[in-house]
Amino acid sequence: MATQHTLTPFVSPILPRTQDVINTTKSGSLLSQIDNPSKVSCLSYEECAKLAEEVRDLIIHTVSQNGGHLAPSLGVVELTIALLKEFDFNQDKIVWDVGHQAYAYKILTGRAERFSSLRTFKGLSGFPKLSESKYDHFGVGHSSTSISAALGFALARDLEGKKNHVVSVIGDGALTAGLAFEGLNQAGHLGKKLIVILNDNEMSIAKNVGALSLFLSRGLSRSWVRRMKHEVRAALNSIPGIGEDLVNFAIKSEHGLKSVFTPGMLFEALNFKYVGPVDGHNLHALSDVLKVAKDIDQPVLLHVLTKKGKGYKPAEIDPSRFHGIGKFTLEEKTHDDTLHKDDALGASGTIEKHSDTQVFEPLTIEKVQAKNVKSFEADIPSYTDVFARTLYALAEKDERIVAITAAMPEGTGLTAFSKAFPERFVDVGICEQHAVTFAAGLALEGLRPIVAIYSTFLQRAYDQVLHDVCQQNLPVVFCLDRAGLVGEDGPTHHGVFDLAYLRHIPNLTIIAPKDEAELQAAMVFALKAKTPVALRYPRGKGVGVSLYPEPYSLDSIPPLEFGIEKMQSFKVNLSSEVEKEKTSVAVFALGNMVYPSFEAAKLLKAEQNINVDVYNMRWVKPLPEKELFVLAEKYDKILMVEENVLAGGFSSAVLELLLDNNLLNNKKIKRLGIPDNYVEHGSCQCLRELLGLDVKGIKRNILELIA
Amino acid sequence: MATQHTLTPFVSPILPRTQDVINTTKSGSLLSQIDNPSKVSCLSYEECAKLAEEVRDLIIHTVSQNGGHLAPSLGVVELTIALLKEFDFNQDKIVWDVGHQAYAYKILTGRAERFSSLRTFKGLSGFPKLSESKYDHFGVGHSSTSISAALGFALARDLEGKKNHVVSVIGDGALTAGLAFEGLNQAGHLGKKLIVILNDNEMSIAKNVGALSLFLSRGLSRSWVRRMKHEVRAALNSIPGIGEDLVNFAIKSEHGLKSVFTPGMLFEALNFKYVGPVDGHNLHALSDVLKVAKDIDQPVLLHVLTKKGKGYKPAEIDPSRFHGIGKFTLEEKTHDDTLHKDDALGASGTIEKHSDTQVFEPLTIEKVQAKNVKSFEADIPSYTDVFARTLYALAEKDERIVAITAAMPEGTGLTAFSKAFPERFVDVGICEQHAVTFAAGLALEGLRPIVAIYSTFLQRAYDQVLHDVCQQNLPVVFCLDRAGLVGEDGPTHHGVFDLAYLRHIPNLTIIAPKDEAELQAAMVFALKAKTPVALRYPRGKGVGVSLYPEPYSLDSIPPLEFGIEKMQSFKVNLSSEVEKEKTSVAVFALGNMVYPSFEAAKLLKAEQNINVDVYNMRWVKPLPEKELFVLAEKYDKILMVEENVLAGGFSSAVLELLLDNNLLNNKKIKRLGIPDNYVEHGSCQCLRELLGLDVKGIKRNILELIA
Repeated sequence: MATQHTLTPFVSPILPRTQDVINTTKSGSLLSQIDNPSKVSCLSYEECAKLAEEVRDLIIHTVSQNGGHLAPSLGVVELTIALLKEFDFNQDKIVWDVGHQAYAYKILTGRAERFSSLRTFKGLSGFPKLSESKYDHFGVGHSSTSISAALGFALARDLEGKKNHVVSVIGDGALTAGLAFEGLNQAGHLGKKLIVILNDNEMSIAKNVGALSLFLSRGLSRSWVRRMKHEVRAALNSIPGIGEDLVNFAIKSEHGLKSVFTPGMLFEALNFKYVGPVDGHNLHALSDVLKVAKDIDQPVLLHVLTKKGKGYKPAEIDPSRFHGIGKFTLEEKTHDDTLHKDDALGASGTIEKHSDTQVFEPLTIEKVQAKNVKSFEADIPSYTDVFARTLYALAEKDERIVAITAAMPEGTGLTAFSKAFPERFVDVGICEQHAVTFAAGLALEGLRPIVAIYSTFLQRAYDQVLHDVCQQNLPVVFCLDRAGLVGEDGPTHHGVFDLAYLRHIPNLTIIAPKDEAELQAAMVFALKAKTPVALRYPRGKGVGVSLYPEPYSLDSIPPLEFGIEKMQSFKVNLSSEVEKEKTSVAVFALGNMVYPSFEAAKLLKAEQNINVDVYNMRWVKPLPEKELFVLAEKYDKILMVEENVLAGGFSSAVLELLLDNNLLNNKKIKRLGIPDNYVEHGSCQCLRELLGLDVKGIKRNILELIA
Repeated sequence: MATQHTLTPFVSPILPRTQDVINTTKSGSLLSQIDNPSKVSCLSYEECAKLAEEVRDLIIHTVSQNGGHLAPSLGVVELTIALLKEFDFNQDKIVWDVGHQAYAYKILTGRAERFSSLRTFKGLSGFPKLSESKYDHFGVGHSSTSISAALGFALARDLEGKKNHVVSVIGDGALTAGLAFEGLNQAGHLGKKLIVILNDNEMSIAKNVGALSLFLSRGLSRSWVRRMKHEVRAALNSIPGIGEDLVNFAIKSEHGLKSVFTPGMLFEALNFKYVGPVDGHNLHALSDVLKVAKDIDQPVLLHVLTKKGKGYKPAEIDPSRFHGIGKFTLEEKTHDDTLHKDDALGASGTIEKHSDTQVFEPLTIEKVQAKNVKSFEADIPSYTDVFARTLYALAEKDERIVAITAAMPEGTGLTAFSKAFPERFVDVGICEQHAVTFAAGLALEGLRPIVAIYSTFLQRAYDQVLHDVCQQNLPVVFCLDRAGLVGEDGPTHHGVFDLAYLRHIPNLTIIAPKDEAELQAAMVFALKAKTPVALRYPRGKGVGVSLYPEPYSLDSIPPLEFGIEKMQSFKVNLSSEVEKEKTSVAVFALGNMVYPSFEAAKLLKAEQNINVDVYNMRWVKPLPEKELFVLAEKYDKILMVEENVLAGGFSSAVLELLLDNNLLNNKKIKRLGIPDNYVEHGSCQCLRELLGLDVKGIKRNILELIA
C-alpha cells in the first residue's frame, strides 16, 4: 500500500543542534521515555505539560535547521498529547488534514530520534505517510481530505463489526474547501460514529476568508443577529402567556441570543453533535471533551481553539510567515532570513527556498538598493517575485486585471497586489474549483482574471479549467507557480503533472518560460490573448537575467514571440549560423531545463569538442509546428528535457506531432523527464541529480544519445 | 468566446409532431407572440398561466420525440416566466446550474421555433451555450458551477460600475457539491448583490442525499430540536423575569421552535439574506419575492419549492425516470420504453439510448424470458446492465465489495445493488471528490470499493484519484461508464478525456474492454488486484456477445488476461497463424473501436482482398510491452484507433513506448481518435461518422495508410 520508491537507501545525518536537543531530553527527559505512544496515557497532566514543552523545543529546533511547517505544528502539541492520552492508535484511526500539523504526532509515535531527518532526502516526510509508520493511517498533503477518508474508515469499521474510534483533525481553513463540506454533509447523512476535530486557529495559511470563517470566528454578523431577533420575537409572540414586554426584554438581551446561536448550529444542522469550543492548550479540558466525544454514538464535531505558533513568540506574532518556513536562526528578529541562502544550489544554478509559502517582499527601489550590499545571488528575485512585481505594475495601468488566489496570497506573491488593489484582489480560500469558475465569470464580463495557483493545487480544478474556462474559450490566465519539483514537501506537492493534465484540453495555450524575463514577456502575451493561457514556472529563484526595464506596461514589454529560441553561446547572426553549423545533435529543452541543458552543451563543447544545439521550446501548446518540422529535418539525434512526467507531457506532444507528420524516420530521440513514479521528498538538487535533470544528467543523456 | 466547431453546417428537419405543436400555438397562441423575451413582462398573470401551459406542451412533445431532460425543465416553467417578467436579460445575467432545466428559458428567449431541433446535430443544445444565444450568459453541463460564475459576474459588474442583477438558479441536489458550497461561502464573504435561487424539489437526479438535504427538506432532525430546546431553555433562563413555567411552555411549543429554526439559518450563517420558501408554481408569489430579492443589496438566497415533472403526470410520479430520458410515447405507461430502439445504430452496431440516466432493470430470469419475444437487438444488455448484474452477483459472495455512486444510482446501474445491499451501497450525492477519497479510506480498511462515475464526471475528482488513491496505491476500482462519445448531451458530457487525464497517474492500471463479456473479466481482474484499477466502457448497448455463465463469482469468471488479443475471422491456432500470415498492416484498436475495426478489416478482405490484422489492445496502462515490441517488429504500417482525445491518449502512450525503445524507424503509423476540439452534440452515429470513428471511417484510414 506504500508509495513505490526507486531510490536507494540513505541514512540522514543527525544535525548537531537537534542532536543536542535529543541528548538534553535523554538526561532525565520525558520525551526519551516515550518509545511507545501508549506511554503518554500513563503520564500525569503535569508530566504532559512538561512533555509538551520538550516536544515544542524539538520541533522549533528541527524546523530552524530543516525548514518546515512550524506554526501549524506548534499549535496542536497539547491536542496531540491529549489524543494520545485518550485514544489507542494501534486500533483507533486518525487522519490529520493536510498533515503539516502532525510533527508532534510523529515525535510521539516512535519517531523522535529520527525527527532531525525531517524533510531531508530519505528522512521523515513532512506529512503523515503510510509507509513511514503504522501510526500514520492516511497519507496527506493536499487540504481537506480528512473527513472523507475518516468516514471511509468509519463505514468500514461498522461493516466489519469493529469498535475502534475514528478521528479527523481539520483546520478551519481546510473547512472552507468544498471537499470538506462534501465529507461533512455525507457524514451527517450516514450518522456513523466519527469524531471530527475542528482545529480553529482563525487562520488557514494566510488569514481565513469566507463567510463560514466569520461565523466560526465567534463574531456573528449584525444583520444575522437582527434577523434572528426578528424571528425569535415572532416565535415568542406565538406562545400565549408571554407578554410583549417580556419579549422585548428577551430580544434585547444580546447575551441570551448569542448563547443560543452558537457556531455549533451550523454543524448541528448537518446532523453533527457539536461539542465545544474548548481551549486547545488546556490538557485537562481537552481530555475531558475527548472523553465526552468518545461516548457519543453519532458524528461529533469537537471545536478546539488553538493558537498557531503557540510557544514560539515570533511564530505567534506572525503565524503566516512561520506557516511553512525555510531554515531560520532562532534568535533573529527581522524578515530577512527568508532571503538568505537556505538551500544548496539547484540544478539551474538558482537558490531554492524551503518554504512552500514564501514571504513576498515587493522589490521597492529602497529594497533593491539595500540588497546591493549583499551577495549577487541573494539579489536574484524568485519567479514568484518577478510575477508579482510585473503583475503589480501592469495592474496599475490596466484596470481590467483581477488577481485570484486560493489561500496563498503570500505564496503566490500577491500580498502587495492585495494591498494596492483590494477591490481587484480575491482570495477565495482553499477553493481552487471555485477560483477557476469564478474567473470564468469575470472573463465573460471583459475583465482579465489572473488565477495564481500552484501547479499541484490546480489539480483540484482540472474539471473547471476544462469545462468552464476552456470549453467556453475564455481569456483566463493561469499562473502555475511551483511547477516541477518542489523539494522537501515531496510527492504530494511536486508540480510535475500539469503539462500532462493540461495539454489535452482544447483551446488552452501553455507556455513554460526559460527564465524570469521570459515569464514577464509570457505574462504580457497572456494578458493580450483572447483565449485561456497557462504559464508554468518553477519554485525558487530565477536564473538572474536582466528584467525588462521599468515602468512596465502592456506596451513596454514585448509579448512572448511564438516560436522556438535557439540558445547561443556567442552573438551571431542566427540565420547564417544555422546554415553553417554541421552538428546533428539537438536538445529540445523546456522551462527551467533550458539553462542546465545549455550548460551541459557548453561543457561538452569545451571538454570533448562535441557540438550540441540547445533550443528553448517555450510553447507547449500550440507547438510551433513549422519550426519543429525544420528542426526535425535538420537533426537526426534529439534529446527532449522537461521537468514534468514523461507520460503525456511535453515530449509526448512533440512526438505526436512529428509522427503525425511522418518525421520520425531514421531519427534517434531520447526523452528525459519524470518517470512513472511519485517522486519522494528531498532537496530539489538531490532529486534532480537522482532523476538526471541536472547539468550532469543532461550531459550523460546527450552522450548516451550520441553513442 | 464560443466553442470551436469544425463541423459543417446542417439544418435540422423539424419533426412533424413538434411542428404540429408550433402550428397549434401559432393560431392564436401566446407562445407564437413571444418573439422577444421582453414581451413576457407585458403579460397578465392569467396569460402567463396560459403561456406556461403552452411551454409545457412544447417541452413534453419535443422531449417525447428527441429525448432530453424532461422532469427538471417541467419543474421550473413558472419560475422561468416569473424571471423573464421581473428581469431584463439583455442587461441582467442568469446562470442556470447544470442547465438541463433551461428548456422553458430557451423557448421564451427566441428559440421556440428551433426547439424541435433540441439535442439533434447542429440543432439546439440541451444546455445553455454561449454561442447559441445572447441570452445564454454562461455555458453549463456539469453541476454546481452557477454560484461561482454568477459571483464572477457580480464582482465584474461592481468593478465596472454597472447596475444589473445577477441570478443563479441551482437545484437542491447541485447544492450538495463542494463547488457550490465554495461559491456560497465566498459570496457571503464578499457581500456582493447577487440572487441565488434554490430550486428545491427534494431531488437531485435520484433522491437527494446528505445531511443538508434533510435540513432543507423542512424536516428538522429530532436530536437537533432536542439540542435547540436545551439551548433556548438556557438562554431564556438567563433572562431575569422569565419564570420557569413560562420557559417550559415555550420549550414545549414545537411550533414556536420550528418557526425559529428555519432552513434559512444555514444560509444566514453564510451571510446570505434568506427569502422563502415560496411556491414555485405560483406566478404571483414568485413575482412578489423576485421583486423583494431585487431590492436587497447583499447576497440573497431565494428558496423556491417546485415539483419535478410538474404538469406531466408520469413524470410527477416517477421524476427520476423522467430526469433524462430517451424518446417516449406520450401514452405509454410501462417502463419498457427505455429498452426500445430509440436511436439509430451506433458505430459498433449497438443500440444507443438517449438518456444520460438509463433506467436499470436487473435482468432476472423472468425478465430475460419475457424479453425473448422481442427482437434480438432489444435483448442486448447495455454495458451498464452487465456491470450492474456482474457486480450484484459478485457482491452476493464477497462482502468486501462496497459500491459508491455520485447521485447516479440509476445511471450507473446500481439501483438493484442499493436495494439488496443497502449497507454496502453509498450514494454520496453530487460529490465526486468525496466519493474518491472516501473510497480510499474504505480500501485501507480492507474493503473493495467500486467507484462508479461517468467518465466526464470523474474529471471533478482528478486530484483525489492522483493524490488520495494512486499515491497510496490503494485497491479502489474506478468504473468509468459513458466513456467516449455520449451523443446528444454534447461537449460537456462526452467522456473523451479520461485516458489522457488518467494514464500519467503512477500506480494506476487502466483497462478498456472491447465488449461486455470482457468488461466482466476486467471487473474480476480489478477486484482481485491489490492496486487501483480504472475500467472505461461506453454508453449504450454492448455488442451482443455471450456473457459468462451464471452464477458469477470471483472464481467462475477468469480475470482478464494481461496482453493483446488478436481478432480472428476464423478459428485458427493463434501462434502458427501469426507466423504464416504475410500481411504488414495492423490496426491497434481500443475498447468500443475494436469491433468496428474488425468489421472494416473484414470488408477490406472481402472487397479488395487486403489483409489487415486487428488487435484488441485492452490494456492502456501498463502497456503489454513485450507483445507490442513483437507487433512493432512485425508490422510496418499501423493504424491506432481510440474513442478518446489523441493528445496524451492511448495511441500517444504506445508511441512513447515504441520511441523509447527505438521501434519507430521505417514505420508508418496513423492515429485515429478525437482531435483537439470539443465535440458538439448529436447522435453518436452522426458524430462517429463525422470523426471517422465508424466502420467506414476506419476503412478509409486503413486505405490511406496503405496508399
